[in-house]
Amino acid sequence: MTVRVGVIGVGMIGQDHIRRITQVLTGGTVVAVNDVDQARAGQVAAGLPNAAVHATASDLIADGNVDAVLVASWGPAHEEQVVAAIEAGKPVFCEKPLAPSQDACLRIIDAELAAGRLYVQVGFMRRYDSGYLAMKAAVDDGSIGAPLLMHCAHRNPSVPLYGFTTEMIISDSSVHEIDLVRWLFGEEIVSAAVLKPRRTSLAAEDLQDPLILLLEMANGVLVDDELFVSARYGYDVRGEVVCETGTVALADIGEVTVRANNVHRSRVPVDWRDRFIRAYDAELQNWLTAVAAGTSTGPSAWDGFAAAAVTDAALQALRTGQRTPVVMPDRPDLYAKAQ
Amino acid sequence: MTVRVGVIGVGMIGQDHIRRITQVLTGGTVVAVNDVDQARAGQVAAGLPNAAVHATASDLIADGNVDAVLVASWGPAHEEQVVAAIEAGKPVFCEKPLAPSQDACLRIIDAELAAGRLYVQVGFMRRYDSGYLAMKAAVDDGSIGAPLLMHCAHRNPSVPLYGFTTEMIISDSSVHEIDLVRWLFGEEIVSAAVLKPRRTSLAAEDLQDPLILLLEMANGVLVDDELFVSARYGYDVRGEVVCETGTVALADIGEVTVRANNVHRSRVPVDWRDRFIRAYDAELQNWLTAVAAGTSTGPSAWDGFAAAAVTDAALQALRTGQRTPVVMPDRPDLYAKAQ
Amino acid sequence: MTVRVGVIGVGMIGQDHIRRITQVLTGGTVVAVNDVDQARAGQVAAGLPNAAVHATASDLIADGNVDAVLVASWGPAHEEQVVAAIEAGKPVFCEKPLAPSQDACLRIIDAELAAGRLYVQVGFMRRYDSGYLAMKAAVDDGSIGAPLLMHCAHRNPSVPLYGFTTEMIISDSSVHEIDLVRWLFGEEIVSAAVLKPRRTSLAAEDLQDPLILLLEMANGVLVDDELFVSARYGYDVRGEVVCETGTVALADIGEVTVRANNVHRSRVPVDWRDRFIRAYDAELQNWLTAVAAGTSTGPSAWDGFAAAAVTDAALQALRTGQRTPVVMPDRPDLYAKAQ
Amino acid sequence: MTVRVGVIGVGMIGQDHIRRITQVLTGGTVVAVNDVDQARAGQVAAGLPNAAVHATASDLIADGNVDAVLVASWGPAHEEQVVAAIEAGKPVFCEKPLAPSQDACLRIIDAELAAGRLYVQVGFMRRYDSGYLAMKAAVDDGSIGAPLLMHCAHRNPSVPLYGFTTEMIISDSSVHEIDLVRWLFGEEIVSAAVLKPRRTSLAAEDLQDPLILLLEMANGVLVDDELFVSARYGYDVRGEVVCETGTVALADIGEVTVRANNVHRSRVPVDWRDRFIRAYDAELQNWLTAVAAGTSTGPSAWDGFAAAAVTDAALQALRTGQRTPVVMPDRPDLYAKAQ
Repeated sequence: MTVRVGVIGVGMIGQDHIRRITQVLTGGTVVAVNDVDQARAGQVAAGLPNAAVHATASDLIADGNVDAVLVASWGPAHEEQVVAAIEAGKPVFCEKPLAPSQDACLRIIDAELAAGRLYVQVGFMRRYDSGYLAMKAAVDDGSIGAPLLMHCAHRNPSVPLYGFTTEMIISDSSVHEIDLVRWLFGEEIVSAAVLKPRRTSLAAEDLQDPLILLLEMANGVLVDDELFVSARYGYDVRGEVVCETGTVALADIGEVTVRANNVHRSRVPVDWRDRFIRAYDAELQNWLTAVAAGTSTGPSAWDGFAAAAVTDAALQALRTGQRTPVVMPDRPDLYAKAQ
Repeated sequence: MTVRVGVIGVGMIGQDHIRRITQVLTGGTVVAVNDVDQARAGQVAAGLPNAAVHATASDLIADGNVDAVLVASWGPAHEEQVVAAIEAGKPVFCEKPLAPSQDACLRIIDAELAAGRLYVQVGFMRRYDSGYLAMKAAVDDGSIGAPLLMHCAHRNPSVPLYGFTTEMIISDSSVHEIDLVRWLFGEEIVSAAVLKPRRTSLAAEDLQDPLILLLEMANGVLVDDELFVSARYGYDVRGEVVCETGTVALADIGEVTVRANNVHRSRVPVDWRDRFIRAYDAELQNWLTAVAAGTSTGPSAWDGFAAAAVTDAALQALRTGQRTPVVMPDRPDLYAKAQ
Repeated sequence: MTVRVGVIGVGMIGQDHIRRITQVLTGGTVVAVNDVDQARAGQVAAGLPNAAVHATASDLIADGNVDAVLVASWGPAHEEQVVAAIEAGKPVFCEKPLAPSQDACLRIIDAELAAGRLYVQVGFMRRYDSGYLAMKAAVDDGSIGAPLLMHCAHRNPSVPLYGFTTEMIISDSSVHEIDLVRWLFGEEIVSAAVLKPRRTSLAAEDLQDPLILLLEMANGVLVDDELFVSARYGYDVRGEVVCETGTVALADIGEVTVRANNVHRSRVPVDWRDRFIRAYDAELQNWLTAVAAGTSTGPSAWDGFAAAAVTDAALQALRTGQRTPVVMPDRPDLYAKAQ
Repeated sequence: MTVRVGVIGVGMIGQDHIRRITQVLTGGTVVAVNDVDQARAGQVAAGLPNAAVHATASDLIADGNVDAVLVASWGPAHEEQVVAAIEAGKPVFCEKPLAPSQDACLRIIDAELAAGRLYVQVGFMRRYDSGYLAMKAAVDDGSIGAPLLMHCAHRNPSVPLYGFTTEMIISDSSVHEIDLVRWLFGEEIVSAAVLKPRRTSLAAEDLQDPLILLLEMANGVLVDDELFVSARYGYDVRGEVVCETGTVALADIGEVTVRANNVHRSRVPVDWRDRFIRAYDAELQNWLTAVAAGTSTGPSAWDGFAAAAVTDAALQALRTGQRTPVVMPDRPDLYAKAQ
């Protein structure tokens, strides 16, 4: 079965997912698009065989040719679109953030609870990275004992000089580790704190960069996450889990080693695309495969909500300088296996 | 456009390509199968939607629903099937070896010359490995000077205890490096020699394992290739090109580093599938994409012939203990850009 | 000139220094020993050519044949012995801690100030490790910009099951990083905080292991130091300094890489001796060379005091759970270049 | 006991050994020097406390204050000086080559046989490198099975533009690996062959650089040794022993890893001093310790002879292009444990 996908939002990320579905993955085809910018929607559709252009997201969701919906619109529009897809009984892949507030996320959860099954996969692609998968396998197999703490680093070469705020280091960057450690350890995060190292002189004057985010898991595992968005030298994501009798760390990426000019060297990725493109592919292939099978196996709406709750606590910690508890309701049974 | 593929030969490798086309890659569909074992062909077709089963390879090639042909039958059948596809004007992907003799390869070349265009891609998948591609980029960009020599190692954990001969180390294993270095350096191989190190006691008694194959390129670059098919510890393919001002080597594979029991360690691939699965995917995606575009960009029939000519020289070198020249006709203009 | 050394305290560490002076280093000879255990002093002297045994530390210091004094007695005895050496005008190498309290350290400083020159080298050997020296060179040469933060890990395979307290993780283990980062960054530490990750089940029940110590330098550089004394898998000291345009990290130790059983692996040191033996050698050679030249170039009494002040703050932070400022007097001019 | 050393030949290497004995190692002192350049001998002696200057090597050897002799004169003078030291009953450390011809080496052996004990240690310092020692330990412990072959590379950044001949690549460079593999495998070399890869354009016009030397051990182990003296990028010595169930390779050298400019990198040594200085130290400390103990444990005169015999075969192979057997007499019992 080929899954007929309708794409809402055809900006950079939406177009990239369309390229993925049409040129890289198997089992999917794009049959409809919608965008607040109608002209852009038309241009994108023109590059696809037989893709309809819908005036509204609702029209796209209602289109009988659309089996499943991919939401890549801007965050404030997610709630309405995702809920509509759920109510239409159509699986929906939603780029992160699931919604801009915890309440909005909870309303999406309510819609799924009302529907009685999972429809939503949130775009946390790191769970599909071969490095993190190998790390999780090493932690789960028990051979190095129970996990005690984890060191993370998340370095971007740069961010826009204007408009990128310190808060966005938490909400845009750290959200990846926030979801990742919940999945990796199978535990919720119970508190967040933020430390402020010496700031780099190479960022905008009002940007506190780098930060160190401290996350405490329900079982006591402590995660320190260096967030450095002006790191200049490359896009570098690092991680080491320290367990009772050993550790497991992400290996460096690099196809070849070059020896020249008195060094041996290997490359560092240039950006997130370079580093995680296969994870994006695997994430969306997983979604297409699950949709075709009538299941939903990826990061759930609950995971989207939990990320929002932890992000809010971390933002409060950033403002107050205090360790801040994460307050969350009990997890509904529907999400029992959603990690 | 979706390329409708007919598959001739649905043993292990044929089935793996079918899985690839239907479950991994984009732009292709399997519409017909044929096998000398009709029952097996029927079973494989039963797992596919709308795939015809043909009684003969000729029938499959003649099938109007078949846009392109994938030949994964046994070697002696390749020539007839590939020539038939060419004569039918259908692109053909042929697993290596292109044909079991240089003469048979030349007859395929004659068919292409008569047709006046390239139709054949031979299954040398290492050209699509990200490691070798990065190595070629590093050599080609000139920053480390002209290549002078190359060290290769090709280690398999084991081979069947019975039936695997010393000659097969040349014909089955080294053929990968033979094609690879022609592509990497853009040069033909002009001689081959074989050295016999101390043999492992862990192989069949009549197997001379390991071997060292020495290949001399037309421009003087010397390649030494350790071939060790009973290496036990894993599937390990290594390579380092030594240039005038630097070297470039394949990096080790491994997603994570584990520290335990007083070592830090990373994995070695377990087999060729583990090591090269992405290269196989990329190879066949390249074929589907080229077929859809009406071109042929991969390893050509000339590359298949050249591999056969070098393999024959290496086998003679194995028998005689002498450095053996590779004798080849001039390359037809049609293949001028085939590297 | 051969420096004639008198050694006070000939337990494990004292004997190791004697072995070093007599069997490894150049420019020194051991001419006198003293120990609270007279019998042990006699046994050690018996293994040396022409070494006198003194009944008291004072006698040894007063011995006209003794050019310089090495103090390897227990901590509470250090102050009196070091001060006596200073007053006798004899250079003194003192194992860490310089003295068990900040006040005792300050009295040693007063003695040096009264003498008007530096006489004391404290046994912080990490400053002589080739890894840390290369790290400092990379930070100091400016090519990767100003330092912003540092990640450290200090893992011991195990500690004694009885008698090793959580406080000792700070006072015995972290004191190495406390001195190291002061030297590395040329800055004082202004605050300390301690985090408590999930504790390992493989340590004594009342041991909170691991800990994370956070140190803030005067210029804002933030250091996180994982202290894990029951790490089991080996003795592993790690460090990465994150600067504005790059990072520098200690490389793994390991003479060879072994490939076997589907992994490639290299060793992790088994204990501090294995990891730092060359740093110990270099430290003491530096002392002998400086003594012969009439100078004092190593870690000073001020460094010993500063380590005590930071350790006290860290211990208070461990007890209170609060970030604790480090309170120190101004550094006397005599120590201006002591870093 | 302090070994009183007389040094014959105080050029670059002789002065370096004097520095080593006086400033790095323990248990030795330089009491006499001699050089064909009397003025230079006087200058060197002036920098030493109480070192006599002798007009001839014979005088130095006869000096009653001299316990042991270090020969660092030019090769043609070695035989006479070493034989004289043996006849005087004085241990002698002789820089390589032991002597410029096999016959001269055999006359030194005859002198030792006449004396009835070992007096000579030849300056093959690689046996004392921690990397090769770890490699030998890994091979000898049997856990990766019997050795089958070895890959070596010996790369120098450059050689003098004038006066350095292709023959010297064999006689000066490869002699290190020639001795090393004899020691590593505990076997004699039975044949040599030389291959000529494409030559670098960055060397003198008449220099065939690089070369590949093939050495066959008595037990069948095959060694390929890339010799590249104009490698430009650094001084890089590599080695991997391939055994029946695993391999062991020299690890890269490098104290730190720097991440900057989209690469992570570590240094390559700049020259042989940088790479092997500790091995030189260990080699000479071993000699001093053995002399003090009245024994001789290092590379023997037999090893010096064997290196000469293999070098001669390799030079003949270079000239003829043929695999050339190494012809050696039986090893005298005196040298039975000399490996």
